[in-house]
This record gives sequence, C-alpha cells and structure tokens, in this order.
Amino acid sequence: MRIGAIEAGGTKIVCGIGNEQGIIEDRVSFPTEQPDKTIRKMVEYFQGKQVDAIGIGSFGPINIDRSSPEYGYVTTTPKPGWSNYPFLPTLQREFDIPFGWDTDVNAAAFGEATWGAARGLDSCLYYTIGTGIGVGVYAEGKLVHGLLHPEGGHILTRRHPDDSYEGFCPYHGDCLEGMAAGPAIERRWKAKGSELPQDHPAWAMEAFYIGQAVAGSILLLSPKKVILGGGVMHQSQLFPMIREEVRRNLNGYVSAEAILESAIDDYIVPPSLGDNAGLCGSLALGLKALQ
Amino acid sequence: MRIGAIEAGGTKIVCGIGNEQGIIEDRVSFPTEQPDKTIRKMVEYFQGKQVDAIGIGSFGPINIDRSSPEYGYVTTTPKPGWSNYPFLPTLQREFDIPFGWDTDVNAAAFGEATWGAARGLDSCLYYTIGTGIGVGVYAEGKLVHGLLHPEGGHILTRRHPDDSYEGFCPYHGDCLEGMAAGPAIERRWKAKGSELPQDHPAWAMEAFYIGQAVAGSILLLSPKKVILGGGVMHQSQLFPMIREEVRRNLNGYVSAEAILESAIDDYIVPPSLGDNAGLCGSLALGLKALQ
Ligand SMILES: Nc1ncnc2c1ncn2[C@@H]1O[C@H](COP(=O)(O)OP(=O)(O)O)[C@@H](O)[C@H]1O
Ligand SMILES: Nc1ncnc2c1ncn2[C@@H]1O[C@H](COP(=O)(O)OP(=O)(O)O)[C@@H](O)[C@H]1O
Ligand SMILES: [Zn+2]
Ligand SMILES: [Zn+2]
Repeated sequence: MRIGAIEAGGTKIVCGIGNEQGIIEDRVSFPTEQPDKTIRKMVEYFQGKQVDAIGIGSFGPINIDRSSPEYGYVTTTPKPGWSNYPFLPTLQREFDIPFGWDTDVNAAAFGEATWGAARGLDSCLYYTIGTGIGVGVYAEGKLVHGLLHPEGGHILTRRHPDDSYEGFCPYHGDCLEGMAAGPAIERRWKAKGSELPQDHPAWAMEAFYIGQAVAGSILLLSPKKVILGGGVMHQSQLFPMIREEVRRNLNGYVSAEAILESAIDDYIVPPSLGDNAGLCGSLALGLKALQ
Repeated sequence: MRIGAIEAGGTKIVCGIGNEQGIIEDRVSFPTEQPDKTIRKMVEYFQGKQVDAIGIGSFGPINIDRSSPEYGYVTTTPKPGWSNYPFLPTLQREFDIPFGWDTDVNAAAFGEATWGAARGLDSCLYYTIGTGIGVGVYAEGKLVHGLLHPEGGHILTRRHPDDSYEGFCPYHGDCLEGMAAGPAIERRWKAKGSELPQDHPAWAMEAFYIGQAVAGSILLLSPKKVILGGGVMHQSQLFPMIREEVRRNLNGYVSAEAILESAIDDYIVPPSLGDNAGLCGSLALGLKALQ
C-alpha cells in the first residue's frame, strides 16, 4: 500500500509517501506560502504517485468537526491568506481517495501511538515546544477533538519566582506558550535557545514551566505516556529536569508505578520517531482513513 | 429491566434501583463505615431484588484497570479499613451478574451524558466541588481512565491577589482542592460556605479559582459541556461568576460559539440530574455493563 502524508506547519510543508509499517519512502519539503500556491505544490507532488489515501496533520486552528460545512478548513489563523481557507476540500477536489485530517499535534500523538514511543498504548499526550506550544491528546484509543480541538499550549502556569519576563502570547501574555515557547526563551535571555549553554539558568526555568504544565495534564488526563517534541526539546538536558519538576509538582499524589522512581525516565520521553513524528503521524491518519 | 446502582461516597453510600430510562425507582442511604459492614448492607439491599446488573461509582483512588489483578479495589485512601480493599470483587462473589465500575466523578459525567445536561454529546467534563474536588472526563464517547484515573482536582492554579490562605491539601497545600473545596472556604472565612451571604467576597474568590481551572481544562480537552456539581455549587450565584472568569481567562482565544456571549450560559451548567447525578451515573454504568 502507498499512503500519502502531509505535515503542514506554519513555516514549512513536508509531503511524503510511506507504507503501513510507518516507513517513509519519499519526501519533499517547501515553505508555507499563499495557500493556492502551496496547495498547488502538494497536488503536483502527489499527482501520478498513485497513493491509496492521504493523511494531513495541519497547523491550526482548524475545523475537524465532520458535521460542519467548514470541515477541513483552516479557521482563524493570522497567516496571510489561510484564514477561513478550505485546505482539505481543495485537495479533495483533486484526488478522489480517502483523506485523514487532524491537527499537527494530534497527528504526532497518533504517529507515536501507532509506531513510536506510545506504541501499543491506548493513550498518550504529545507536546510540541517550538515556535508555539501545542498538545495532541490521544485517550482511550481515540484522538480527542471535542468542541474545537485541544489548545493545551495556552494554559496558565504559576510564574517562576526569579522570572520577570512578561510573556509574548498576544491573547494571554504569560500563558505557557507565552513563557516557554522558543521565542520566550530568546526574548527573555536575549539569545536563541540553540546558542545558550547546557548549564544556563534558562533551562531550569524552562523545565519549571513545562514540568508544571505536564504535571497538570497528568492529573487531568492520566495519560500512559507523555511525549515532548519540537525544536526546544532538542536540548536533551531538559528531560531529567522536567521529570524532576513533574515529580515535585505531583508530590507523591499520583501513585502510579510509571511515575515513581526511575520508571519516569520511560514515561516522559522524546518522540521515538524523532523528527519524523509529524510526517509519520500524518501517514497514520491516512492509513486510518482507509479503514 | 431492573438495574442496581451504588453511589459510594467517602461519607455515605446510596444504593438504588432504576430502569433504562434513568428513572430511580427505589433507594436507600447509609453511612460509609468499615468496609465489611458497609458491603454487607449493600448485599442485603440488593438480595432478592433481582437486578440484571449493578453499576458502582466509587470514591477513590480506585483501580479501574481491567487487566490488573487488583481491578475493582479501592487503593490508597486514608479511610479506615478501605485502603487496598477489594470492593468490587467482594460484591461479585455475592451476585453473578455484570458489574459496571468507575470513579464517582466519571459515573456522574456518564450519567449526565446519558440522561442529563450532556445528553447526546460525545464529551463533557464533570466537576464536583464539595469536601474535595474531583473531575470526571468523558471524551469521544468514552470515559477516560488512562494510567490510573483523572485527578483533576489537584492541579495548581494561580493565587488570587487578595488571598493569604495557605490551602489544606496534604499533598500540595494550595492546589485547586486545597484552595477551593468546601473546607478551604470554611477555614479561610471561619464560617461554613452555606452560612456566608450570597454577596460575600468568598464567592468572587471561589469563582476565580474554579474559573481558572475550568478554563485550563477547556484548553486541554475542548469538552462539549462543562458540568459543575457538589455541595459548594449549591451557591447558584457562582455560575455567572465562573462563566465570566472562564471568559476572562480564555480572552477570546477559543472561538467556539458555545463559549461566546450568552451561549456560555448553556455551556457551563449545573448537573441537570441534580442530586441524582451520582446515582443515575452508577445506573448508566450498570446498564452499559449489560451491553
Ligand atoms: N537546539 C535548540 N535548542 C533550543 N531551542 C531550539 C533549538 N532548535 C530550535 N529551537 C527553537 O525552537 C523553535 C522552532 O521550533 P520547531 O519545532 O523547530 O518549529 P515550529 O514550532 O515552527 O514548527 C524556535 O523558537 C527555535 O529557537
Ligand atoms: N449550600 C452550600 N453552600 C456552600 N457550601 C456548601 C453548601 N452545601 C454544602 N457545602 C459544602 O460542600 C461540602 C460537602 O460537599 P458535598 O458535595 O455535599 O459532599 P461530598 O463532597 O462529601 O460528597 C462541605 O464542605 C460543605 O461545607
Ligand atoms: Zn496564550
Ligand atoms: Zn492537592
């Protein structure tokens, strides 16, 4: 079987083709520009490639309500041209095959649950910590949509006592994304995260915010695995620091073996599909659309 | 059909019998004492009543992992005698019928989704704000269990600027439960909540904490309905105040019609089964166990 996959990010699009084992056989990547031009490139890529289905994990917010006339639209994004744009319907007019459609973070969660760190489990949370912060929610064997879709990057956290940075979220100022996404690190410390040394105080502060958010989501959802991806998490020294913060926040309340002692090293983890998590997730969505 | 229902709270047990329309036909109530004595009373109640199934919504933490040898146990409660007690297995030895088993708050969420405020919807959150704070999670048509089960009453919230109360949670001090459950109101204001006037500043502070938690859970889970029950929510003036706090916290970020303007009055609501939410929820669990 040949399944198409589209990982649609706010800055770049990755298109690829893979199989039912989650192996990516071919891929291309191009910048996210005006929607008509960008969609044309996707169509050109898949034309003649005879894929059986295509899965799309998209930047958002997007409409994932199948009963809505705007199902498949990008909704209120500030990205030029994309606001209220019929992303999925435009592709459906070109290819008469099943399509999978979900948020980029739900796709990544689903990819990890299908072939990655949460393989065989019926629940996981996928955080991406990059230019923004997003959370994909997979629970009881299903991707969670609800009213719109999860937007867990914007929850409020308590401020670190040594932090005077005001936060950059245009809606909430100092929400999690406003305080802990890549741009917050850069503005707070006047240097890109990738340029700060591993022992810089930025990382303890980063772990403080992410650990607090992860602890809260463990309390509310009790996921079987927590996966942390995105550009900022390339700083792998963050993992032990975040695990420690989660433990400090829970303070023994959640007495699951997975969280106690060293088992937590296998509970809060990087995506095991690495930088393929997004594209493999879209592939998994495409595969599911066939069923 | 005759379905048995057990609402097992930390202070009292309600047993009842109902039908597939969610109508409770008979009920009794007795205090929660030593487990052997308490279970005996349940057995006596159901003996000879010829119920086809029994659903139980229990205080916790409890084991709801069907693959565990301790499935059906109450786990780490400080309640005398109940820690590590085989609640469900003991009843199963007496009655050879299907049993439903979940947390009290998941049961209440399921009851409201079956016959109450979230009827016909595939997701809702049920908060109980009483002696403690618990959250039941129903998403994509399923009760969420995960690793253990949701414990959303213990998330951290930001402190109200005028609040110097330290919080009573033995694990976290000033977590949501520690700051906003009934005992927090009583200790902070030196009077029972039920004795404070409707315009007392206690209620603005209460709405501040609950609104913040509800906003966070809307971001993380995007539920189609949020139901607030429990003793404290008998103060019905809290509803408009909490809705306002939720809106203030989200600050326009979640652009769902349900949350905008006056529609929110129908989004954040009391249990429409009223004080029957718990027992009806257990009934719904029993009914589901038959299927
Ligand atoms: N090695 C790194 N260390 C710290 N921060 C990084 C690193 N690599 C990228 N980032 C930050 O992550 C953000 C980009 O995240 P990324 O997940 O790559 O893309 P996006 O979120 O735009 O899809 C930027 O703010 C960047 O500064
Ligand atoms: N009318 C009321 N106004 C404010 N608080 C109340 C009211 N009724 C009960 N409470 C508080 O709610 C708590 C009991 O909650 P309830 O849901 O009735 O029981 P439980 O949580 O023990 O199952 C107590 O702390 C009590 O002070
Ligand atoms: Zn925000
Ligand atoms: Zn607590």
